[in-house]
This record gives sequence, structure tokens and C-alpha cells, in this order.
Amino acid sequence: MGVAMSRWIRRAVERMTGYVPGEQRSGPDVLKLNTNENPYPPSPRVIEAIRRFSVASLRLYPDPLSRELRETIAQVHGVSSDHVFVGNGSDEILRLITLAFVEDNGAIARFHPSYTLYDVLAQCRGVPLRRVALGPDFGWRSPPPRLRASLFFLTSPNSPTGRLYPDEAVTAFCDRFDGVVVLDEAYAEFASRNGLALARTRPNVLVVRTLSKAYALAGARLGYAVGPTALIAALDKIKDSYNINRMTQAAARAALEDQAYLQRTVARIRRTRERLSEELRALAFEVVPSEANFLWAAPTRITARALTEALRARDILIRYNPEEWHPNYVRITVGTDAQIRRLVAAIREIQEQRRCD
Amino acid sequence: MGVAMSRWIRRAVERMTGYVPGEQRSGPDVLKLNTNENPYPPSPRVIEAIRRFSVASLRLYPDPLSRELRETIAQVHGVSSDHVFVGNGSDEILRLITLAFVEDNGAIARFHPSYTLYDVLAQCRGVPLRRVALGPDFGWRSPPPRLRASLFFLTSPNSPTGRLYPDEAVTAFCDRFDGVVVLDEAYAEFASRNGLALARTRPNVLVVRTLSKAYALAGARLGYAVGPTALIAALDKIKDSYNINRMTQAAARAALEDQAYLQRTVARIRRTRERLSEELRALAFEVVPSEANFLWAAPTRITARALTEALRARDILIRYNPEEWHPNYVRITVGTDAQIRRLVAAIREIQEQRRCD
Repeated sequence: MGVAMSRWIRRAVERMTGYVPGEQRSGPDVLKLNTNENPYPPSPRVIEAIRRFSVASLRLYPDPLSRELRETIAQVHGVSSDHVFVGNGSDEILRLITLAFVEDNGAIARFHPSYTLYDVLAQCRGVPLRRVALGPDFGWRSPPPRLRASLFFLTSPNSPTGRLYPDEAVTAFCDRFDGVVVLDEAYAEFASRNGLALARTRPNVLVVRTLSKAYALAGARLGYAVGPTALIAALDKIKDSYNINRMTQAAARAALEDQAYLQRTVARIRRTRERLSEELRALAFEVVPSEANFLWAAPTRITARALTEALRARDILIRYNPEEWHPNYVRITVGTDAQIRRLVAAIREIQEQRRCD
Repeated sequence: MGVAMSRWIRRAVERMTGYVPGEQRSGPDVLKLNTNENPYPPSPRVIEAIRRFSVASLRLYPDPLSRELRETIAQVHGVSSDHVFVGNGSDEILRLITLAFVEDNGAIARFHPSYTLYDVLAQCRGVPLRRVALGPDFGWRSPPPRLRASLFFLTSPNSPTGRLYPDEAVTAFCDRFDGVVVLDEAYAEFASRNGLALARTRPNVLVVRTLSKAYALAGARLGYAVGPTALIAALDKIKDSYNINRMTQAAARAALEDQAYLQRTVARIRRTRERLSEELRALAFEVVPSEANFLWAAPTRITARALTEALRARDILIRYNPEEWHPNYVRITVGTDAQIRRLVAAIREIQEQRRCD
């Protein structure tokens, strides 16, 4: 039956496994620290925009080019709007990038460990994925000069490690790399530096951002890219015509227009991040300095696997991915102070219990 | 400069032109009868769902599988939800279909004239697009038995013609065709018959629907497919993880749950469609009998091009596509009775003016 039913499916798709997103368990007592969502709600302006939204206008197609939204993004970053592309989440943009800038005989590269969606996109595009191992403590290591790839996904700050790389090293790499460099800056709002200057000045560099993290709009699906007009125009050619719905266009504009709220939320999360780092170190974790809204940390009194499972039993979800990332490290989203207190108390309890066993 | 800036863009993408959607001009006096939007608002339940929507929940990712929404669709059609796929508009589904069911050396076929997006999708997928000419009066003609294609897009009712094909002919074709048949039923709610029985019983048939037309949700972007579980599972493997945002999931469920409103709206549009057919025939148009929310008609007292331009000068937009469709025919969306009166009065005036010139 399996064979008979699948004769219509493309071989490459049959072999694929697909990307597995972080668990989306819900419930009043579940503490989700596994998918780097923002613990705070979106800006009050978003709430107002949705309240004021003309539901009757949904009968009409949205602007296929999302012009007003691109204009808002352009203003935030001080570029003109032909340097801006918008997607149905940055997922869509990353996928379109593999279609637009990688020939059939090309290849895609990324650091390791990093975001595993790139591997699925490479598989989907039918090209090899080359991993470049990071340096000590997950820091920068120059990709080999003869790296044969037409596209490099450079996650910055990196996930799952939270690390940011030295500006000079990244710039030098962009200038000598033969293909397109995508600075995947999903967490850049939480960081002390970003790569926008490169996207504004280099013909082969795109910055990709998302409203899912710092803007607290994961549920609205909006990502954007900033970069050279020629690369932006190529993405526009191959996107689905009406890729951004009307409600998301309205919500995203409202969120982007409230930069003060963004700054306040980011500042709170950064303060909690430092607090959580200290608490985890006090519990004998090795904590990698983070420029994102999560921590990459290795417990030393318990295995990462046992910790993840014991927390899960207490309805606290963190991310552990031994095959793709690292067997000793877990990735923990920075929540509110109250959430972090619950997490830390649970870890303390788990570790003490182990000691007594 | 053009050459230097484009060295990073894939050759196939550089050659592409991209799909050009119908003009989205707006303004208080513009009468848009060019993109088959619904002249009536979505169900009051949609308005209520958006009013009640928890904007704070936007900080969380949506359900990647849109399970509740699929369950609602499954109930509407009396199937189980593993026979249902949902997409960010049916555009996304049609694109994913070309990825899932067409090998790199495959081909895609469609009738001519039909929806020109298929050509862009074939170009994007890098495979040939084979056109099968329709019979007299744009009616059914059996595709040649040796048609070498792995996928047939069968638009039903067809756009731009509004015609539906005989059930027996479609069934026989699905049963003998070697590849996947996609019944693109964007307008099926306005028709007297549909192909759901085929999608429920044939291993190679998918029905694709949209909420953009009969449900008046073009601005929310929601399409769905019904078909064999093996084909549905293949689409799930290759979609973007979180392809449907939270607001659209809520709006679409509310719309689908109000089947009574759908039936009332469809009945109104069908009545106006018959009225408009009579009026156009009285104005010496040849009108193809329509099973959709638009009419495909050829003026005889004026050229289709001159008519389109004269209407545009009066802020009335209809669709004319001489290269891709037919030089003598225009496609006119069925609006409200009042809109249709304005259109008919304008046509009468234009034709009388011509006679006096």
C-alpha cells in the first residue's frame, strides 16, 4: 500500500524528514522556554491596530507588495523601501533565498552548531549543505577559503549559542566570499551590534530579521530582509503574489512604529538574561555569554538530558537537541523574572534531589 | 552595473518575469470587477472572531499544523482531517504541489486558456508547461493520451471562462492520467457540481479550494486542499513550519463554521450573475454560461480592448488579457446589483457614444 500510494510523490520529498519545530504544548501551568518567544505581549499599538482593523476589508486582496509596511521598515532602518523585502515569517524569506541565489549545482553553508532549518531548506532545494565547525567556546572560525558554496547562512547572534562574532571577521568574510552571505539576525534586537551596515554597503549581503522575537509577534508571521536592490528584486520575482495578509500588515506596522516599546521590552529581557546567567552559574552551569533572548548552558551536576526530562515532568519546556547541537548543552529562553524564578527553583530542587538519591 | 549586481542571482530567476496580479487600484469611486473578489463582507462571525481575538497571544507561534482549522474543514466536507492541508492562500498550495509531485525532469500541463499562475510556477520549478487547447466554446477536450506530464492543473470551474466540464469526462481523465490531477476549485462554491468525490476516492486527485472568493476572505490568505492522505502528508513535509498565522486561523474557522451565510452570499451572487448575463446579451455581448462569480464575455459593438480602456477611464476595472487569454473576451467579476447597474449603464453609454462618433 505504501508503495502504491506514493508513486506520485517526488523521490527527494519522500526521502525528506522535514523540520521539527520546538514543542508547542500549551496549558495554564506550562512554562514554555523552548522556542524563544517573547514573554511580554506585543505593543499596545498592535492591540489598537487589530481592534480598529476593518474586518470588512478582508474581502479584498492585500497589497501584494506590502508597500506601506516596507516603507515603515525602511524608515526604521534609514534605507529606501526598494532595499526591503517582507515575508510570511523569516522562514519564507530564508526559503526564497535558497531559490533565488543557489544554482542547481550549488551548495549552501552554515556554521555548526546553528539553526537546523537551513539543512531542511538545502534538502528541499536539492543541494548539499556544508557545515563549518565553530571555534573554541562556539566562537568565530574563518570558513575555509576554498569553501565551495553559493550561499552562507550566518546566524548572528547565533542560535543555539547566543554568540555574536567579531565585526572585522564577519566583514572580511563577506568581502572575500564568492556567494551571498545572509546575516540571519532573528535575535539582533537583543544584541549590542548588528550587520545592517554590511547589508547597506555590500552587494552580496542580506540581513534577515523577524518580528517573532523582540516584537512579540510570532503568531502574526512577519519577517523582513534588508539588502541590495538587485537581490531584493530577485526575491520579489519568486514570492507568492499575496504573501502577507492584511491583518499581519496592519499589526506589523503598528509594532514597528512603537520603537520605544521595543526598547523597553528588550531592556527588561536583557536584565533578566543577566540575572538568569548568574543564577545558572551559581547552580554550576557553564553559561555562554549571550547576545540573544536565550541562554546556551551546560549543567555539570546533572546531564543535559536528565535536566530537560526532569523539567518537562514539572511542565517546564527547554530545548535540548543532542544530535544537531550538543549533548551537554541546553537552550533556555529568557522569560519574565517570575518565570525565571520558577525555573531556577525547579533546577535547584532537581539537582538537590539527585544528590540525595 | 546590471551585470555586476546580478552575478549572485540564479540564471533561471533572472530570466523569469513573475506573475502579475490584477490591478489593485483603490479609491472611493473605483469599481473593482477585475480580481473576482466578493462584493459582500465576510460572515459576521469573522468580525466577531477578530473582535474577540487575543492580540496578546500573538507573542506565541501559531499551531504549525493548524489542527483546529483542518478539523473544521474536514467537518465541512465529511472527511477526516488527515485528508486536509491548509496553505497561505491557495497560491502556496499550488506552488507546494509543483514541488511535491513533479520530478526535475517532469512537466506540468493545463488547459488553455486558464489560470496563468501555473506557468509561473512551472518556470519557478524549472520544468516545461504544456498547454492543452480547449474545445469549441471553451468546452472540454480530452488531453492527448500520450501527454507527457506529471501534473495536470484542471481549473474547475475554469477561469477565465467560468465553464465547468462534464463529470464523466473529468473522471475518465483522472483515472487514465499517469500523474496527479489538481482540481483547482477556487470558484466551486458558485457552481452546481464539484470534484470532491474524486478527491475522496482517487489516489491521484487533489481538490484545492480558497476562502478568497465565496467566503470573502481574500485579505486573510487561506487556501486548502482535500485529497488522499499520502499526497497531503507530502505537502506537510515541505511547507514552511508556521505557514498560517493565528489571526487567519481564527478568521477562517469562523467563516467556515457559518455555512448558512456562505449559502446566502453565493445565492445572491448567482442571481446577480444571471441578471448581468441577460443585460450583457441585451448589449450584444456573447456571454459564456458561467458557474463562477464572474462572466467571460465578448462585446461585438466595440473591441474588448476599447471597452476595457473606456471603462477604466470611468474608474471601472475589468480584466482583459489578450496575450494569455483571448483578444475578444473580457472577464467581469459579478458585483452587487448596484455595482452591476453602474457597469451596465457605463457600457451602454460607451457603446452609444461609439455609434455617434
